[in-house]
Amino acid sequence: MQPIDRTLAGQLPAVTPGDAVRLAGHVHRRRELAAVTFLVLRDHTGLAQVVVKPADGQEVPPEETPVEVVGIATASSQAPGGVEVTSPVVTALSGPAHTPPVELWRPEIAAGLPTLLDHAPVTWRHPAVRARWEVAAASLRGFRATLDSAGFTEVHSPKIVDSATESGANVFEIDYFGRPAYLAQSPQFYKQQLVGVFERVYEVGPVFRAEPHDTVRHLAEYVSLDVELGFVRDHRDVLSVLREVVAGMRAGIETHAARAVERLGHDLPVVPEEIPVIHFAEALELVGAPEDEPDLAPEHERALGAWARQTYGSDFLAVEGYPMRKRPFYTHPQPGDERWSNSFDLLFRGLELVTGGQRLHRLADYEEAIRARGEEPAAYASYLQAFAHGMPPHGGFALGLERWVARLVGAANIREVTLFPRDLHRLTP
Amino acid sequence: MQPIDRTLAGQLPAVTPGDAVRLAGHVHRRRELAAVTFLVLRDHTGLAQVVVKPADGQEVPPEETPVEVVGIATASSQAPGGVEVTSPVVTALSGPAHTPPVELWRPEIAAGLPTLLDHAPVTWRHPAVRARWEVAAASLRGFRATLDSAGFTEVHSPKIVDSATESGANVFEIDYFGRPAYLAQSPQFYKQQLVGVFERVYEVGPVFRAEPHDTVRHLAEYVSLDVELGFVRDHRDVLSVLREVVAGMRAGIETHAARAVERLGHDLPVVPEEIPVIHFAEALELVGAPEDEPDLAPEHERALGAWARQTYGSDFLAVEGYPMRKRPFYTHPQPGDERWSNSFDLLFRGLELVTGGQRLHRLADYEEAIRARGEEPAAYASYLQAFAHGMPPHGGFALGLERWVARLVGAANIREVTLFPRDLHRLTP
Repeated sequence: MQPIDRTLAGQLPAVTPGDAVRLAGHVHRRRELAAVTFLVLRDHTGLAQVVVKPADGQEVPPEETPVEVVGIATASSQAPGGVEVTSPVVTALSGPAHTPPVELWRPEIAAGLPTLLDHAPVTWRHPAVRARWEVAAASLRGFRATLDSAGFTEVHSPKIVDSATESGANVFEIDYFGRPAYLAQSPQFYKQQLVGVFERVYEVGPVFRAEPHDTVRHLAEYVSLDVELGFVRDHRDVLSVLREVVAGMRAGIETHAARAVERLGHDLPVVPEEIPVIHFAEALELVGAPEDEPDLAPEHERALGAWARQTYGSDFLAVEGYPMRKRPFYTHPQPGDERWSNSFDLLFRGLELVTGGQRLHRLADYEEAIRARGEEPAAYASYLQAFAHGMPPHGGFALGLERWVARLVGAANIREVTLFPRDLHRLTP
Repeated sequence: MQPIDRTLAGQLPAVTPGDAVRLAGHVHRRRELAAVTFLVLRDHTGLAQVVVKPADGQEVPPEETPVEVVGIATASSQAPGGVEVTSPVVTALSGPAHTPPVELWRPEIAAGLPTLLDHAPVTWRHPAVRARWEVAAASLRGFRATLDSAGFTEVHSPKIVDSATESGANVFEIDYFGRPAYLAQSPQFYKQQLVGVFERVYEVGPVFRAEPHDTVRHLAEYVSLDVELGFVRDHRDVLSVLREVVAGMRAGIETHAARAVERLGHDLPVVPEEIPVIHFAEALELVGAPEDEPDLAPEHERALGAWARQTYGSDFLAVEGYPMRKRPFYTHPQPGDERWSNSFDLLFRGLELVTGGQRLHRLADYEEAIRARGEEPAAYASYLQAFAHGMPPHGGFALGLERWVARLVGAANIREVTLFPRDLHRLTP
């Protein structure tokens, strides 16, 4: 007999009743009634119902056991999608699974965050939990599709670096063949150098922060979506690309994770044709903060988010012009008033999601900026090569994947949307 | 006056002669003749020729300086693509660039590997060098497109891990908030666990090997393309996916990096409909090696590559059945003869490119395999959770991006195709 091709759960509703099918997946739910046992099978496309009668002579193994089911597709108004499988032959593909730490078959997972995280290899199987990452993966598809079609080149920069120069603090030290090295806090220096090569670059990869605080928003390792482009007029050109990227990520989710969005029950954000922009100085005024505040406090960001929603119908607001003294040394000042910078934060529903801006591009400006913070340009020799040999006006931004998804799905803690989070206390699973 | 939209070098041949254009890029070459100066401008799409006459009253800054050129598109049989720019206004976008460490405008770069690597931020600008990475980036697009369309989910697993359990050797140690942690040598354990969640997963990300040898094939950090899928019959199902992936990567290059391939002058590989497979035992016999050899030596791989090319017209050959004693503990044995394994290497033009195979999936088999190497299953508790709670038969593979590109472009040393290589001696740029 020819083996029957596998039918995915999501395909079952389209099978002609009476046809033989072969399903494969985990036992999601085993419900034993007096006259019948329901086996709900879960694969990566959804759930399928299998009806096991005593006359079938089949054992249904415990929940989470991987099984193959060969049976007959049968119309049933009770079954999800209108088709179930009857007269099954059920074959366990491993020994019986141990009882999971939480009941994965319940519509909502009933467990606290520590349980979810300690048992991540299993708790991610819950469809509502898995949906969170499906949103992340679909966002990545949208991110890359947008940039690929705009002539960007994907790059991969080293994560082991020789110095902690970008910020100096919160870096992890490595034993690198007997000498010290560090884990990169961002691909910032590399993506800038690569603008000299490819003009427009992006990178999706891990970044590392030895973040000594235990907060709901910070991780020691997260996925950073980095973009950098050359021949810009100023940071507004960067903001235009960011708008396209955010719209593309939203489109990616709509196209590739519609089922996950429906399950999560959250509205996708409104991305306006043009993201409204407010200057930092005006933002302070709007929220009633003193005009010498160097940064926006979380409550200011929330107030600005509400204001943007009300005024522009937008879930996004860019705040430009942050004070130079609070931005990294490579930040380009605002022409005409060097207290301010050509940099921005993008607030998403009142929370900082992206930081970006225009960078310095002239060698002399770098040398001056480095000396102004009491350092010697020689310490940055390898980075400064790119500027010595000609770099165009450029800028870019970085967006944390987990922070984006947390905000989209309404997660209170960023760890809920991270596959295997790393923080001050957690190094496993 | 309205600003003129930027014309890319690659678009110039399609501009109507007589139209005004605005180009932006680096001065690739400045050639001063008695009556005219040629400025060859380079952007990410190619080169454009600008003709500067004394009457234009324009200074042409030195090579590598970023410039903007506004002028008139003019038909010229001498210009690349048949169109050049005349009557230009040339504006430098930074100070004059310092003379590059190598002449980037020469058709072939004349510099040894140490110079190339020490000055990577600049030497990658050479079109023939840049082409190598364009092949890499296009390969990644093909890799993802193939797997996305086959229902795989992209994942990102942690690079900071709590133990060096997979192989024990050659790991980098980190100071993780005062306690030891390690850089992941591969996402192996995580991608397996995630098969229980998503069934089919892939990851593109850095892996770290504290490789104490200085060879032309090894790096301390490289980009690993990892794939894992569940509900396979055996390793042959994995090999089928690998075939599609390799064909997809080739198609990605053809579609997105045709110009780079032409410049590099290397033929793209032949990917047959089905990759020929030979058993390890037969392979030893074919190359005349003793039948108790535990592995294939490089000269054996070369001989097998030549044989596959001659016998099947294929640049690829899969060798299956490697001895269990040489494979990692999670390797699935060959049913019926447990000396051999359900694992394979894929040789590409006589060099190992990919390692893959079927993994164990039953908890009891893991416990036995771990004890067999003198360890306690408890040390693997977090990994083994997935198997305790039901894992399907599964397998996967890992492919090193740099190794693939090195082989495609005929690079003698893997560092030639790595943006910023890391090895025993090199930690910068």
